[in-house]
Amino acid sequence: MKATVLYGPGDVRVEEMAEPTIQSATDAIVKVTLACICGSDLWDYIESPKREIGRPRGHEFVGLVETVGSEVNRIQVGDFVVAPFVASCGECDFCKKGQVTSCRKIAFFGHEGEPGGQSEAVRVPNADGTLVKLPVAPDSELVPSLLTLSDVMCTGHHAALTAKVKPGETTVVIGDGAVGLCAVIAAKRLGAGRIILMGRHEDRTNLGIEFGATDVVSERDEEGIAKVRELTGGDGAESVLECVGTTSSMKMALGVVKDYGTIGRVGAAQYEEIPFGFGPLMKNISISGGVAPARAYIEELMPDILSGQINPGKVFDLSVSLEDAPKGYEAMASRKNLKVLVRP
Amino acid sequence: MKATVLYGPGDVRVEEMAEPTIQSATDAIVKVTLACICGSDLWDYIESPKREIGRPRGHEFVGLVETVGSEVNRIQVGDFVVAPFVASCGECDFCKKGQVTSCRKIAFFGHEGEPGGQSEAVRVPNADGTLVKLPVAPDSELVPSLLTLSDVMCTGHHAALTAKVKPGETTVVIGDGAVGLCAVIAAKRLGAGRIILMGRHEDRTNLGIEFGATDVVSERDEEGIAKVRELTGGDGAESVLECVGTTSSMKMALGVVKDYGTIGRVGAAQYEEIPFGFGPLMKNISISGGVAPARAYIEELMPDILSGQINPGKVFDLSVSLEDAPKGYEAMASRKNLKVLVRP
Repeated sequence: MKATVLYGPGDVRVEEMAEPTIQSATDAIVKVTLACICGSDLWDYIESPKREIGRPRGHEFVGLVETVGSEVNRIQVGDFVVAPFVASCGECDFCKKGQVTSCRKIAFFGHEGEPGGQSEAVRVPNADGTLVKLPVAPDSELVPSLLTLSDVMCTGHHAALTAKVKPGETTVVIGDGAVGLCAVIAAKRLGAGRIILMGRHEDRTNLGIEFGATDVVSERDEEGIAKVRELTGGDGAESVLECVGTTSSMKMALGVVKDYGTIGRVGAAQYEEIPFGFGPLMKNISISGGVAPARAYIEELMPDILSGQINPGKVFDLSVSLEDAPKGYEAMASRKNLKVLVRP
Repeated sequence: MKATVLYGPGDVRVEEMAEPTIQSATDAIVKVTLACICGSDLWDYIESPKREIGRPRGHEFVGLVETVGSEVNRIQVGDFVVAPFVASCGECDFCKKGQVTSCRKIAFFGHEGEPGGQSEAVRVPNADGTLVKLPVAPDSELVPSLLTLSDVMCTGHHAALTAKVKPGETTVVIGDGAVGLCAVIAAKRLGAGRIILMGRHEDRTNLGIEFGATDVVSERDEEGIAKVRELTGGDGAESVLECVGTTSSMKMALGVVKDYGTIGRVGAAQYEEIPFGFGPLMKNISISGGVAPARAYIEELMPDILSGQINPGKVFDLSVSLEDAPKGYEAMASRKNLKVLVRP
């Protein structure tokens, strides 16, 4: 079977790999029907050491359960399922609190010699805790939106929840990538009265407006901060959803947040330190968020996709075959495309 | 009348100053019956430029209302009152949400040529919004505890609230100063199941145990972190109350907090940056807290002092006359004493 692997910067290949097999009684094997490329897949694509053996890629996928281990009970062969981007047991103290990214038995997709999600089939550890059954057929037009539950829509929701978006209040979303745009959906869904989207790619911010953004600020850094302050009568926003992860975006977040406000950060931090000293202390600024416990949000968000209330699948603006996955990486890395579907 | 003023490092004097007078219709003049020295008073005492004109000191006091401006209605002449450490209007959008340290009309105590709280009398701006009537006589033995409502007990409470101390969970309090010890009281009051106090002054940590600490860790930095991890089965604590404000204490807070836990910081930040990058993001660590909105907490905490449920006044271990205020500063700066009462 075919799987996507990374050999180094700009070097993604699709190559033959052995079929994944059950390794533990709690595993399932899923035949992937649709996958996609994550912004985080690009980090290593842009900068990483060259490898002798390719590193399997992909942690966002939906598919049909092909085989289950002897201890898998909830999930059955033939189920059409979505997998969140980490595999969690569903039974430990962290999982019971919905803190699945700190699961005591946490596992990931794709290991040396074993395919990840951007492939024809993938092994899912902790299958009962991890997989969620989808109540549609694999060819439903809702599938791209349901696929976003594997990561990007849940990550946007985590930003909104941890930033404490409240009905009627003002929210700033920093970043017009797929996570930022899903964060707009999430903020609107939680009732934000005003959603200011900071981004400078017009096609993306236009989609943000479609998703519920009320204002767009294309300026960055000090200029962007000044613009948001101007739009908010000098006060800034009660909640700020930081969906980029750079020093610059975090400084913008700190610059636009209102006294006693909260920053929900989900952008993968490319910084080591942040300027969070006496000034933010005197203003009672909070920073929350982190890697999203997607599994804990899927049941909550799915009904809104099924009812057509939200349509996060619109973030996909290119679809490639599995063989063409390298073209998908290239399209996202060059920013020609926002987010790319991969069809095995 | 006499007032405490600072001329530079180690140079606190008590000198004659004109009686304060009503400057705005919302002011009140309070005859101070008991004041105290704050940890933050020591910053300038230890390091600050030399001054030609002394800087009046003191923002923690109780006293009798002597005069009120024409627009003061709630507070009356003769009332025995406590003042929180900032003066807030009580009517603006921030004050209505209890975010009084960001009040639109915020004001402070003591200005050039006008006495602060460590004096015989002090002007209180926004008197109706700021002052809280005390239902005891100025000579009640409860007064030292009630005086802690001006700052230190409310600051400890703010640490506990913003760190989200929950019944039965484990809390770490970093710092055995007066704020840290009041944070122990606050954590216990909110139902923390286990309270680990990090501090190395045995007389102070003993008071912490009296206040409700269940464990004391005297080690610092990496050694202290390892000890707390050991005490908590490797997990760390759900809530961490950072009551010091140094880079070292913030690193300890980050080192002992459990995944998905929250740090409530109230220690005046002596750092500019904190190491809050990819690692804490993957663990979903939150940092909250800031300068405490003391005024918003006074009504909630006062009944527990009146009933004897909590006794934060035990943090005072020295009492000096107003004339001897400089000796009080010296005693606190040398760490000979924990917190010092000043009696005009």
